[in-house]
Amino acid sequence: MNLSIDQDRLNQEIDTLATFSADPAPAVTRVVFSEHDVQARAWLKDRCREAGLTLREDAVGNTFIRWTGAQPNLPAVATGSHIDAIPHAGKYDGTVGVLGGLEAIRALQAAGFTPQRSIELLLFTAEEPTRFGIGCLGSRLLSGTLPPSVDNTLRDADGQTLAAVRQQAGFTGALESVRLPEDHYAAFVELHIEQGPILDDLGKREGLSLGVVTDIAAPASFRLEIEGEGGHAGGRLMPGRRDALCAAAEIILAVERSTLATGAIDTVGTVGICQVHPGAINSIPSRVQLAVDLRDTSAERRDGVLARIRDTCDHVGRQRGVAIRLEMINADAPAKSSPQILAALESACEVEGISRLSMVSRAYHDSSFMARIAPVAMLFIPCRDGVSHRPDEYASPEAIGRGVIVLARTLATLSAS
Amino acid sequence: MNLSIDQDRLNQEIDTLATFSADPAPAVTRVVFSEHDVQARAWLKDRCREAGLTLREDAVGNTFIRWTGAQPNLPAVATGSHIDAIPHAGKYDGTVGVLGGLEAIRALQAAGFTPQRSIELLLFTAEEPTRFGIGCLGSRLLSGTLPPSVDNTLRDADGQTLAAVRQQAGFTGALESVRLPEDHYAAFVELHIEQGPILDDLGKREGLSLGVVTDIAAPASFRLEIEGEGGHAGGRLMPGRRDALCAAAEIILAVERSTLATGAIDTVGTVGICQVHPGAINSIPSRVQLAVDLRDTSAERRDGVLARIRDTCDHVGRQRGVAIRLEMINADAPAKSSPQILAALESACEVEGISRLSMVSRAYHDSSFMARIAPVAMLFIPCRDGVSHRPDEYASPEAIGRGVIVLARTLATLSAS
Repeated sequence: MNLSIDQDRLNQEIDTLATFSADPAPAVTRVVFSEHDVQARAWLKDRCREAGLTLREDAVGNTFIRWTGAQPNLPAVATGSHIDAIPHAGKYDGTVGVLGGLEAIRALQAAGFTPQRSIELLLFTAEEPTRFGIGCLGSRLLSGTLPPSVDNTLRDADGQTLAAVRQQAGFTGALESVRLPEDHYAAFVELHIEQGPILDDLGKREGLSLGVVTDIAAPASFRLEIEGEGGHAGGRLMPGRRDALCAAAEIILAVERSTLATGAIDTVGTVGICQVHPGAINSIPSRVQLAVDLRDTSAERRDGVLARIRDTCDHVGRQRGVAIRLEMINADAPAKSSPQILAALESACEVEGISRLSMVSRAYHDSSFMARIAPVAMLFIPCRDGVSHRPDEYASPEAIGRGVIVLARTLATLSAS
Repeated sequence: MNLSIDQDRLNQEIDTLATFSADPAPAVTRVVFSEHDVQARAWLKDRCREAGLTLREDAVGNTFIRWTGAQPNLPAVATGSHIDAIPHAGKYDGTVGVLGGLEAIRALQAAGFTPQRSIELLLFTAEEPTRFGIGCLGSRLLSGTLPPSVDNTLRDADGQTLAAVRQQAGFTGALESVRLPEDHYAAFVELHIEQGPILDDLGKREGLSLGVVTDIAAPASFRLEIEGEGGHAGGRLMPGRRDALCAAAEIILAVERSTLATGAIDTVGTVGICQVHPGAINSIPSRVQLAVDLRDTSAERRDGVLARIRDTCDHVGRQRGVAIRLEMINADAPAKSSPQILAALESACEVEGISRLSMVSRAYHDSSFMARIAPVAMLFIPCRDGVSHRPDEYASPEAIGRGVIVLARTLATLSAS
């Protein structure tokens, strides 16, 4: 089977999707269920209908775009990713897997391929934790990793529940209906930019390669609330101050130090949020909220870092007389790729004459949770300098095109029987 | 002359003024030129008109409320303070000096006193730096400490210039007209809560005292902008990260350390603002903005702390590969009280049988800038546990009443000839 994609159309669609953004280009900010997300979804569904695909949306907005196979009762083969984007992000993270998945299906259609199993393109809701503080909301619910009760417990920064926000966006069913059974899909394969520098570095030395992902790192994240004592920055003397921001500064540095202390390249730790109350130049910070993200290919090593950070919190709390409360958001297991899908990916690369690297994903993805209910694997595209979650995130059309071709051939293999 | 004040009226007025707030009680948030500030000013001016006083407002909203003396051509004697309040502040800071000043004038009127010099109550615009990042905006302009050109260079967080904001609030003249000549006032005396624990501690041991302020500390403040490199919290490995928040954490701790290192009780340093960009849990901070407040009774010692912080910024910037830009907001001189006004305050305390403590103000006040154009002094009222800039800020009616009586008698002495 000869396969080719319409690269111009794909480039144009990536550019168009990027225009649904709360911030001006090149930044993309598309928070789940915001007006920009709702508009982007509508535009995307139109493209899928144009391709003759059928659509289903679940109660949390996960969207299932189906090319019905010759044997529609067999478990389908699925691909897909997300289109939400953190504040001031770029236009490739997630969207390449969604628009690339659509283009792969169109390439198979154009080649006259008839799938036996149906092929589904999945659009997951809220892979990014921006709005509700937890990543992969849609795929967690889909895979039973989160209980439906989060509908009333998860709240955004304005205090609105998930239930209220999703219903305003038009997703009105009960969350209980979102979970899918374990044999629902025969396979799930996700195309994504690497979000790290390995493939880009390799490309500079040895020419363009794709990444075949064998493992996805185990992510954990948590919030820290530090409660000290405020007061006037002039009137309060230094001895006896209980400055919440000074305590936070010690913890921020401890996250960095504990992460580096494992000596393992795969251990990463980041404090991405630091909110100070009351936040006035002449007022001692009385309360600080931090949010921390830890990842490792070893859940055990990651939990060791977490334990060291807890020790620091205890120590800093005692020494500075501040109260420090740690609230876990998630602590997930690593995911392993399916040997069958890895073999299909390798063989597709072989047929297309594309070099590839077996690698680990340190970023987590919806695949991490799809792994609970289906065999999964991921295919990585290099991105320039490993930059992601920034406006200057970039993947070349050539790299994206190769990823889409390999994805299409892999979907063909997996759906053929 | 027998003097007495209407304590119930004063209590009620303090409570009423606190209701003009952007946050619910007990918090008071009253940002300059906000609707709450404008409403509070209107209410206050009505109270002053009821007392038969005449009003003048200058182009930046400084308000001059005059009880005309028998010799109206002599330089007036002035008192006053501010009514703006930082986010989540209390109801005494500033307002006690304004409403207490009004009550002092009414007490003198009720006692049948006739001033020779006019007595003026001053309401200063924006003593707090909340909106435009610089404290004592009104008294700085009044005393020529800031040039009128700031009208177009100072901007609030929404990017609006001082010129635009003050004009929206109804203050339309040219800023050039705000400055007053050096012989405009014969004396300025400001009543204020201490915002520190000294008088309250003393009160617990030896009974209620007032504070007679001999010196006001030298304040300095500056902004730090730290520019690192963002990226995906999972995909970017730890080596080679240029995390702006980790750099900020080192500087926050250096501010604390450098301040403590002087060994002087009067040296205080605070990082009150820490804003992180992009501020997402899974994104490495690319940019952090800090705002730092330093104060000392010795400008030399304060500048030594500033130099040490600059050294730390250079070191952290080099070591972490981040760019750190320091922008001074202000670096003011300490102020010394006038012996003549101090004598009048001491004598008023003596007549009323009130004990007093000579002390330093570590908080800066509009008096710091009035000192450039007039003899000044301050009178401090104890506040509970030294707490200020917080909703639980508290000064007892008894303490306020004593302060007002001493202020009234002092104004009588100073305006008598």
